[in-house]
Amino acid sequence: MTSALLEKSVMEAPHRFRVLTGDRPTGRLHLGHYFGTLHNRIRLQNLGVEVFLIIADYQVLTDRDVADRLTEHVEELVLDYLAIGFDPSRGTVFAHSAVPALNQLLLPFLSLVSIAELGRNPTVKDEIAHSRQSAVSGLMFTYPAHQAADILFCKANLVPVGQDQLPHLELTRTIARRFNDRYGRVFPEPEALLSAAPLLLGTDGTKMSKSRGNAISLSATADETARLVRGAKTDAERHITYDPDTRPEVSSLVLLAALCGNRDPHEVAAEIGSGGAAALKKTVTEAVNEYLAPIRARRADLARDRGYLRQVLREGNERANAIADKTLAEVRHAMRSLY
Amino acid sequence: MTSALLEKSVMEAPHRFRVLTGDRPTGRLHLGHYFGTLHNRIRLQNLGVEVFLIIADYQVLTDRDVADRLTEHVEELVLDYLAIGFDPSRGTVFAHSAVPALNQLLLPFLSLVSIAELGRNPTVKDEIAHSRQSAVSGLMFTYPAHQAADILFCKANLVPVGQDQLPHLELTRTIARRFNDRYGRVFPEPEALLSAAPLLLGTDGTKMSKSRGNAISLSATADETARLVRGAKTDAERHITYDPDTRPEVSSLVLLAALCGNRDPHEVAAEIGSGGAAALKKTVTEAVNEYLAPIRARRADLARDRGYLRQVLREGNERANAIADKTLAEVRHAMRSLY
Repeated sequence: MTSALLEKSVMEAPHRFRVLTGDRPTGRLHLGHYFGTLHNRIRLQNLGVEVFLIIADYQVLTDRDVADRLTEHVEELVLDYLAIGFDPSRGTVFAHSAVPALNQLLLPFLSLVSIAELGRNPTVKDEIAHSRQSAVSGLMFTYPAHQAADILFCKANLVPVGQDQLPHLELTRTIARRFNDRYGRVFPEPEALLSAAPLLLGTDGTKMSKSRGNAISLSATADETARLVRGAKTDAERHITYDPDTRPEVSSLVLLAALCGNRDPHEVAAEIGSGGAAALKKTVTEAVNEYLAPIRARRADLARDRGYLRQVLREGNERANAIADKTLAEVRHAMRSLY
Repeated sequence: MTSALLEKSVMEAPHRFRVLTGDRPTGRLHLGHYFGTLHNRIRLQNLGVEVFLIIADYQVLTDRDVADRLTEHVEELVLDYLAIGFDPSRGTVFAHSAVPALNQLLLPFLSLVSIAELGRNPTVKDEIAHSRQSAVSGLMFTYPAHQAADILFCKANLVPVGQDQLPHLELTRTIARRFNDRYGRVFPEPEALLSAAPLLLGTDGTKMSKSRGNAISLSATADETARLVRGAKTDAERHITYDPDTRPEVSSLVLLAALCGNRDPHEVAAEIGSGGAAALKKTVTEAVNEYLAPIRARRADLARDRGYLRQVLREGNERANAIADKTLAEVRHAMRSLY
């Protein structure tokens, strides 16, 4: 189905859809995450789609700095989700490592894909190309099958993806189809909901990324935000325009202000005009701080109650386990391995 | 530790050891299995070693004929175990697919090995060499890590292996060591108990294997046994001797009679002498049928009570799950992923 048609189906009958998506717990989420995917998840939730958020804690094991502060990173992620409006009474947030029956699905799924297929996955291919072969872990190599287990354990039928993630979902669909063909229908073949993520650059003009220190995190204070925007790279041309191809840094700032104000970026740029970089930065800072103010206030409130955060995660884990146990029972029944 | 020293430790303090071993549920067990490994497991159990038997039902998924009759094959395996003297009140028999927490261990373990290490495993290497690369499944490729999970979930510290299986156990030891080094000690590094399996050939002089129809299964009747032995390949020399190198078929029959009678094969051969193949076959048939009579009687008794078989497996699965849940909790604690 094309994404436009799919989007129409979602609008018409949101309750027929279940979304699985999530994040690796590597630290606080930033505006790139927010306008790239988080915002869309909350939109889907608010339409009435059931949203599952997986905290992919097994995907950060090889990053020692992250692994050593796992509990903290996981709690920060839950905090960010709740702050932006994720509603745990309507959706489920859970940790990958907390759901054994989900993880068991990896085994039958691995029997349905060849090592050639795993190696063709772009993420895996990339990893192999950038490392010595001896350095690629078995966990990374089998990543496409993990992703199938993550998506299929709750029978998600809708997965919001960027263009680059389409091949991942294709293998999940292949695994679902092969399983159903061989053992009888258990799984849906999930559809990709392609979302065109706006191109927000970091303050240094490169890809926004926490590790580069060029990202405005959702939880930054208004002052930190002002400081980061003040230091943002612009260009030598005084007159502000919105032209992502020739003026990527300036346009990214314009776009950020536009997204936060729900406005057209060309209009924002025209309004600033010859005010130059200083005026642009002032506009951006105000727009971001105004947009994030309620999110930050809610985050600060929630952060004072760690017990509640842990409860949300515990209840999410329990719900994910109940669903995974049920799916695994169906899988074992289909495979005639109920004894 | 050398196997002789290890064997001495086992004799002296059997309760310090826990064995994990098992079989793929591909059909009824035969005399090759029995004198190769089964007999040794029961010996260890009777010494006081705690024995875990895993029914490796996920390792037969790619064999469609087997997968379609899985329940039957699993029950036959339990029946064979009980018939030869496995005591479910002292040990644990369980199905691989029934223990989600065991299977989850695969994920952290896969993060500790590289694809180069997985590919160096002789079984995997063999499979890759004999298939087109595209035909090797992800499940087969990750097999050495599954085996580590099978052994380590119950913290088995002793694994009876043949010479050819040593490299498998080496990777399990590596995974245990790497996990302990990185996250703190959770797992033992299991020792290999090398057992010199007697070389029993099938009745056609090739490797004994159910699929070749050249094997005497434990559950064969006395008549079936007689018929199989009668058709066994021998050689043109009338005088019976025990000389495995030059007379493999005749020597295998002599050895079988010797093993069943707990005698020296040279002595058995000398006794038959010029009686020739006919006398040899008569001796073998009698020895096998006498040896297996109580096993077969017990098996027939047990086979009438499928409810009991299922109960043994259910209780074994429950016990394996309790242990796996406990180990996974320790693993998650060590990895700081308890939330």
